[in-house]
Amino acid sequence: MIVVLKPNLSKKDETAVLKEIKNLGYKPHIMRGVERTVIGAIGDERKNHTLEALIAWPQVERVMPVQKRYKLVSREAHKGNSTINVRGTVVGGKKFQVMAGPCSVEDEKQLLTTAHAVKAAGATILRGGAFKPRTSPYEFQGLGEKGLKLLAKARKETGLPVITELLSQDHAELVAEYADILQIGARNAQNFQLLIAAAKTGKPVLLKRGLSMKIEEWLLAGEYVLANENANLMFCERGIRTFETYTRNTLDLSTIPIIKNESHCPIVIDPSQGAGRADLVSAMCKGAVAMGADALLIEVHPNPAVAWSDGAQQVTLEGFAKLMEELKPFIAAAGRE
Amino acid sequence: MIVVLKPNLSKKDETAVLKEIKNLGYKPHIMRGVERTVIGAIGDERKNHTLEALIAWPQVERVMPVQKRYKLVSREAHKGNSTINVRGTVVGGKKFQVMAGPCSVEDEKQLLTTAHAVKAAGATILRGGAFKPRTSPYEFQGLGEKGLKLLAKARKETGLPVITELLSQDHAELVAEYADILQIGARNAQNFQLLIAAAKTGKPVLLKRGLSMKIEEWLLAGEYVLANENANLMFCERGIRTFETYTRNTLDLSTIPIIKNESHCPIVIDPSQGAGRADLVSAMCKGAVAMGADALLIEVHPNPAVAWSDGAQQVTLEGFAKLMEELKPFIAAAGRE
Amino acid sequence: MIVVLKPNLSKKDETAVLKEIKNLGYKPHIMRGVERTVIGAIGDERKNHTLEALIAWPQVERVMPVQKRYKLVSREAHKGNSTINVRGTVVGGKKFQVMAGPCSVEDEKQLLTTAHAVKAAGATILRGGAFKPRTSPYEFQGLGEKGLKLLAKARKETGLPVITELLSQDHAELVAEYADILQIGARNAQNFQLLIAAAKTGKPVLLKRGLSMKIEEWLLAGEYVLANENANLMFCERGIRTFETYTRNTLDLSTIPIIKNESHCPIVIDPSQGAGRADLVSAMCKGAVAMGADALLIEVHPNPAVAWSDGAQQVTLEGFAKLMEELKPFIAAAGRE
Amino acid sequence: MIVVLKPNLSKKDETAVLKEIKNLGYKPHIMRGVERTVIGAIGDERKNHTLEALIAWPQVERVMPVQKRYKLVSREAHKGNSTINVRGTVVGGKKFQVMAGPCSVEDEKQLLTTAHAVKAAGATILRGGAFKPRTSPYEFQGLGEKGLKLLAKARKETGLPVITELLSQDHAELVAEYADILQIGARNAQNFQLLIAAAKTGKPVLLKRGLSMKIEEWLLAGEYVLANENANLMFCERGIRTFETYTRNTLDLSTIPIIKNESHCPIVIDPSQGAGRADLVSAMCKGAVAMGADALLIEVHPNPAVAWSDGAQQVTLEGFAKLMEELKPFIAAAGRE
Repeated sequence: MIVVLKPNLSKKDETAVLKEIKNLGYKPHIMRGVERTVIGAIGDERKNHTLEALIAWPQVERVMPVQKRYKLVSREAHKGNSTINVRGTVVGGKKFQVMAGPCSVEDEKQLLTTAHAVKAAGATILRGGAFKPRTSPYEFQGLGEKGLKLLAKARKETGLPVITELLSQDHAELVAEYADILQIGARNAQNFQLLIAAAKTGKPVLLKRGLSMKIEEWLLAGEYVLANENANLMFCERGIRTFETYTRNTLDLSTIPIIKNESHCPIVIDPSQGAGRADLVSAMCKGAVAMGADALLIEVHPNPAVAWSDGAQQVTLEGFAKLMEELKPFIAAAGRE
Repeated sequence: MIVVLKPNLSKKDETAVLKEIKNLGYKPHIMRGVERTVIGAIGDERKNHTLEALIAWPQVERVMPVQKRYKLVSREAHKGNSTINVRGTVVGGKKFQVMAGPCSVEDEKQLLTTAHAVKAAGATILRGGAFKPRTSPYEFQGLGEKGLKLLAKARKETGLPVITELLSQDHAELVAEYADILQIGARNAQNFQLLIAAAKTGKPVLLKRGLSMKIEEWLLAGEYVLANENANLMFCERGIRTFETYTRNTLDLSTIPIIKNESHCPIVIDPSQGAGRADLVSAMCKGAVAMGADALLIEVHPNPAVAWSDGAQQVTLEGFAKLMEELKPFIAAAGRE
Repeated sequence: MIVVLKPNLSKKDETAVLKEIKNLGYKPHIMRGVERTVIGAIGDERKNHTLEALIAWPQVERVMPVQKRYKLVSREAHKGNSTINVRGTVVGGKKFQVMAGPCSVEDEKQLLTTAHAVKAAGATILRGGAFKPRTSPYEFQGLGEKGLKLLAKARKETGLPVITELLSQDHAELVAEYADILQIGARNAQNFQLLIAAAKTGKPVLLKRGLSMKIEEWLLAGEYVLANENANLMFCERGIRTFETYTRNTLDLSTIPIIKNESHCPIVIDPSQGAGRADLVSAMCKGAVAMGADALLIEVHPNPAVAWSDGAQQVTLEGFAKLMEELKPFIAAAGRE
Repeated sequence: MIVVLKPNLSKKDETAVLKEIKNLGYKPHIMRGVERTVIGAIGDERKNHTLEALIAWPQVERVMPVQKRYKLVSREAHKGNSTINVRGTVVGGKKFQVMAGPCSVEDEKQLLTTAHAVKAAGATILRGGAFKPRTSPYEFQGLGEKGLKLLAKARKETGLPVITELLSQDHAELVAEYADILQIGARNAQNFQLLIAAAKTGKPVLLKRGLSMKIEEWLLAGEYVLANENANLMFCERGIRTFETYTRNTLDLSTIPIIKNESHCPIVIDPSQGAGRADLVSAMCKGAVAMGADALLIEVHPNPAVAWSDGAQQVTLEGFAKLMEELKPFIAAAGRE
């Protein structure tokens, strides 16, 4: 930790700060600058008490941490890229993966039609929501276990592994029984109890970025998964909340090189939530591929206008097939398969 | 719903939109403007399928809802101000209430010292965290049930009712057994399963605003509580996330008149989380009182520098007593007791 | 400056950084921590070359400035509160000031009616826009010099000093000839050429906070005024841009204690722009007074619905008179006159 | 305009609104819905007085504009893509353009070295700042006219057209004498007087997006250029301000498909300002190319660590040459040359 003192302190006031730093387990190291005196507090910031509360002292102007707060998800902990094997489909490796399917599972016909179509177009993992977190209690909340059973049926028919959202600790075992990847949604990204429950199922976890989550907080939320002995974590950028209202969210594609710098875990991009508008999905996907994403998560629906949730952002079956064609040269340019 | 069409549509394209609107249960009403044709779709937006997915149609430029999405929390549903009786202490009435206590319950001495001191200074409800949501898995996660028992002891000694955070559905019954008000934290503000579990305990619920939650979303999250047959809901503003880094969050005091306009539920202000700095708490409290808040939620600690969480924002016992004195003329000016 | 090195650097890589720090005029001071080595670079950060570019070096993890970048506006430079004398009306002193008037000057009758009414209700300074910055080129751009002349006439009739916006360097002399305070609008808050031109007129300057301006940037923009030998600077908070859409902007009232902490200059609050809705203005004013603002800047119009600009946020003459009455107990509670 | 009335209005209250709408030049059209009555106000929103001030009436719940506020920059006004001929280099056509050079012009050697190197690597336009807008008055403000002369010399030696920033109306003629494209910076994006002055020089204008500018506001700022009879406008995304602090700004690449949808003007991406970190520039450029940008604007410096401004985000000469190689397959995949 670095502690910056206010200018012109008395000797006594300075000594009190030094004493407190020692009390809290750090070794203080003084540097006298031109206008300010700075104390380097040497010690392990993850094991010792934080010094941030010193900011409440009248002598102290600023306290700045030095160490990174995350460890297991960091690139320092694991030099290579982690890969995640999902029933033989590997996320994070040379092959670029596409997860596609409806926002919500609505009925057997809707799901199977979509599953067959996205597989034919080249998708390698099937997505579909059975439990849906909805802003209003009056909106469709998902088919629940019935939806999970339909996903299992679609997997059996197409061979595609399945990703679906987990939104309650109480459902962790149930959802893990049917799903191949557990998705943690943006609104639950700092629901730490849910993250722990998901980790403990042993299934791969896809962690969406919260609507206003800083990169550091996202990595720390991921740390909850790895610290609970589940190494199969993927990060998924799905847009952050900004002042802009043209798009539903602002898709932050800079997360691709940043997550690659900071972490060994794969990074997935969700352009459907990210833009909230089907007409922007294609361009977003191209950008994500070019920038080095490991996979895409795309919402596809046979008839978006009658979808039970998020119709505005789902692409049609034809739109998805066209998109997959358009992505090919970019996947090649990015050195992926 | 209002559907704005793109200019210069063919008759056929326009008819297709009208047909879809009818299919989805609305009665279309056409208005031809100077540059655009606008369709008013008449029907109950909470009962019928939303028309928002029409934005994905090439004919459509914009879709705008007309009805408010929340109902039970709205001022229209209940003209007067709701009051909440917490063991005889009424929130939302003529008397201004102050909830105060440590961020985390750390041990018996810390809690009891604080509880007696805040009571002596005029606080009417005791706060204290037993289960703590922490950004990093390596940070102190709260004393759990032991903390709840200490809170119960402090209540017995001081007579102050107790508010504490609920952060897992699995703890709902346990926490409700000890607490007089269940607090839902900012990171769980759209954890709808938790909101439902809290509502079902029957205890009063204090719902903090999420870090990037729009007013409408906050009201809808509150709607989950009332729709689950618990009318004792308070909203609590605790700062939103913005670009500013001087403060930890930006406390949005405009929520006071806004919640009073839109809802009948009480509004509580948390200046400790809101500013993240003890030196700004006093001014924030004065503003909140003057603007018509029903209560304050203030973090107080005998020695903030050694607090196990959020030391930077906790005020000292002396600081709290001084603050309570300073607030008196503003409480009087606001016509409260 | 504090330079944090990446872990496990070779001796050679570390030496290269030390050498560069010396080249750039600083004395390096090494601290070896548990995981990271930190270099304190001692020297005047305002006179020497910044070290921030070192972040581009592969050896460097982070660079953190220690000194504050602003000087003349800072509380350290001037311990007391600065007061600004505007034709005998003092801003920043014991007396609370209210600047009120129409968003735009529209015609003689509108301005004089408003000026007399706000004076009668207790306003002490008259506001009115003659040059208007408008988001669209198709909107009313202000009466220009004709508006300035009307303001001068209103001043003559009422004795109220006048504040009006300066939005072009080319108008600096012209506007200064008529106005008693020059207002720099939010969109020009980092138009440094305009700030310099305003400063050089010698007239008091009211600097609005930019829509997404950090406190530090705002103080630095103010520094441009003082560094150009004009000490009569007031800061004016008028709301920042956030994700919230219920209000036009989010009025950040925490700026009141923050500006008081960091600077000696007066702080003025503009609740009209801040909320963008007349129905929220009253509560905002009460909060601003209670939190220690030195003055308010309020838009008032005889008939807001037909105002040529920003009708939604202007209060009526009756509304203003009522507001001034309601503020009295809060002004007294805040220890002001 | 759409005016939503509050529920349960008296006939008299409703009639007053209708009368006002007529007074303001619109023809009202009533639709009675399930819970709300909605009035369609038919008339040209750009020629008539806005109805937005009606929100201040107690009868009115919401006012929503229907028409787009921009006209000349819109795709409706001009179906094809506009191209801009800069001394024979065409921006917005089949050929992808790269503008590169130092943040600030520092001296002849620095500029000429960079100019020759970026040309050799494939850049087609030279960038360099002669007048620099700086957050602090104590930072380097640019070489001024001396810098412009050096840019002219570099153009003569390399044949590359030159883009440089205009930051004062007073310099418009001077800068236009030397520059081939006038750049309007983010902090001046709503300095409308400067936009008008730039437009009137007749030179092509590159308009950066303001730090917290909505797409609609950006298009309207561009409208100022076209409305002042200069059709050679390019938009340039350079990152917006969000809560994230890992990057200096959040580069919003979704602006590429959005500007292409809404406007006929070319779109340029500035990844240097956008990320604020040289190590992210390469990935950002790939994304921009893949998503359909017309050009890039990249900061390049022979030795970023000693740059007089923004060293952290400038790439080295070698870095730039490598980047240009890496972009080739993506430019081909995007169907550009």
